[in-house]
Amino acid sequence: MRRIRLTVAYDGTNYHGWQIQPGVVTIESVLNEALTELFGEEIAVIGASRTDSGVHARGNVAVFDTEGKMAADRICFALNQRLPEDIRVQDSCQVPSDWHPRKQHCVKTYEYKILNRRMELPDRRLYAYFYYYDLDLERMKEAASYLLGEHDFKSFCSAKSQVEDTVRTIYSLDILKEGDEITLRIRGNGFLYNMVRIIAGTLLNVGNGRMEPEELAEILKARDRRAAGPTAPAKGLTLVGMEYEPF
Amino acid sequence: MRRIRLTVAYDGTNYHGWQIQPGVVTIESVLNEALTELFGEEIAVIGASRTDSGVHARGNVAVFDTEGKMAADRICFALNQRLPEDIRVQDSCQVPSDWHPRKQHCVKTYEYKILNRRMELPDRRLYAYFYYYDLDLERMKEAASYLLGEHDFKSFCSAKSQVEDTVRTIYSLDILKEGDEITLRIRGNGFLYNMVRIIAGTLLNVGNGRMEPEELAEILKARDRRAAGPTAPAKGLTLVGMEYEPF
Repeated sequence: MRRIRLTVAYDGTNYHGWQIQPGVVTIESVLNEALTELFGEEIAVIGASRTDSGVHARGNVAVFDTEGKMAADRICFALNQRLPEDIRVQDSCQVPSDWHPRKQHCVKTYEYKILNRRMELPDRRLYAYFYYYDLDLERMKEAASYLLGEHDFKSFCSAKSQVEDTVRTIYSLDILKEGDEITLRIRGNGFLYNMVRIIAGTLLNVGNGRMEPEELAEILKARDRRAAGPTAPAKGLTLVGMEYEPF
Repeated sequence: MRRIRLTVAYDGTNYHGWQIQPGVVTIESVLNEALTELFGEEIAVIGASRTDSGVHARGNVAVFDTEGKMAADRICFALNQRLPEDIRVQDSCQVPSDWHPRKQHCVKTYEYKILNRRMELPDRRLYAYFYYYDLDLERMKEAASYLLGEHDFKSFCSAKSQVEDTVRTIYSLDILKEGDEITLRIRGNGFLYNMVRIIAGTLLNVGNGRMEPEELAEILKARDRRAAGPTAPAKGLTLVGMEYEPF
C-alpha cells in the first residue's frame, strides 16, 4: 500500500465545493470516481482544504492510498485523462503512509481578484468580483498592515463556524494592481471559515471610504463577526497553493 | 432616426460566432433580440468584425438605427440588463447616420494567448491555447519581424476565403510573457479570414523549432496557405479593440 499526494487545480464554477455531499457534484466526489475507475479499487481522497462552492484552486492538495503499481509521477497524467477539463491534477508523488494534508505545518496562499472598472468583462466574470466604485489602494494597503502577524481572527470568521481556536498568523497580504484588476494575495499558516472572503469584503469597505484603515485594529479586538465587512463573493477566490515542509 | 455605436465585449465560448445563422445562437442574434425588446422596434445591428465560433472580444463594434429617445450614453446600461452575462456592452454613443463600422479606416488589435506549461490550468482553458512543448520566444520575435509592414498575406488566409485583395499592413506584433502565459499582440489595418490564428500557428512552429524564423519571408512570398503553419484554436483569440478616426 502506497500513499500518493496530488496537487489539484480546478475551476470551481460548476461544483458544490470540495467536500462530498449527497445529491450534488463536488471536486472530491469527481476525484474519487476517477481514481476508483483508474485503479479498479475503491479510493477516497483526503483533501487539505475544503473549498466552498464556486471557489477555484490552482494548488489544493489531496492524498489517497492504493495497492496500484503505477509510477507515482505518472498518476497525474493518467488521472487527467479521466477527469473533466475543469479539474486538472498538476502533480503526483508518493508520501509517507502517515502523511496527512491537514495535520502538517503548512503555508497557504490565496488570491482574491477584484475587477475594478465601470463595465463588467465577460471573460473575467467567473474569476473576479466585479466592483464598480473607485477604490483607494493606499488605504487598503494601510488597512491590510493591521492584519499581518499573529492575531485572533474571530471577527473574520463566519459566525456559522464552530472552531474554537481562532488565532492565526498572516505572513503577508499584498495588494497588487494590473490594469483594471486588483489582486489581494494573502499567505498564512491557516485560514478560518470564509476568512479570506471577509478580509476582502472589509478591505473593499476601506477602499471605497466606508471604513477607515485604523478601524481594522478595533475589528480584530471585537472578536465579533458583525464588526468586520461583508463576505466577498466566492468566485473571486483562488487557493493558489500550499507549501509543506519536506518529509 | 439616430445611429448608435456599441462597443461589445463577449466570451465567445457558448456562441456560434458573431454572424446570424439559422438554428444557432450568435452574438449578433442575441444583440438584435435584446435591442428589439429594449426599443420596441425591429432592430438589426451592423457589426465591424464577424468573429468566429469560440473567439472572444473585448472591443468589437456594432451600429444600429433607432427612433428611440433614450440618451445614447445610457443605452449600454439598459442593454446590459437584457443581455446574458457573457455579453457586455462597454460603451454606447451616437454617430453620424452614414457611419459604417466596416467602411472606415480603423486599426484593429487582436491578442492570441498561449498557456505554455506542463499541465493545463482549468481557469484558463477557455481563454488560452494550452501548449505543452518549450517555446523559444527570441525565435518567435525574430519570425514576427518579417510580418511587420505592408505585405500580401495570402499565405496567412484561410483557403476558404474568396477575398481578392490580400494585402494588409501590420503595425506591430509584440510577443509578451507573464508567468506561463504568452500573449501575441497584433495591430493592423485589417485581417484576412483566420489570419491571426494562422500567424499564431506559424509562430508556434518557429518557437518549437519546426520552422526557422527566416522562413517567414518565403511563406509570404509563396502566396499559398499550405506554406504557413496550422490555424491555432479559436479559444486563444480575443479581438481587443478597434480604433477609428474621430468623425
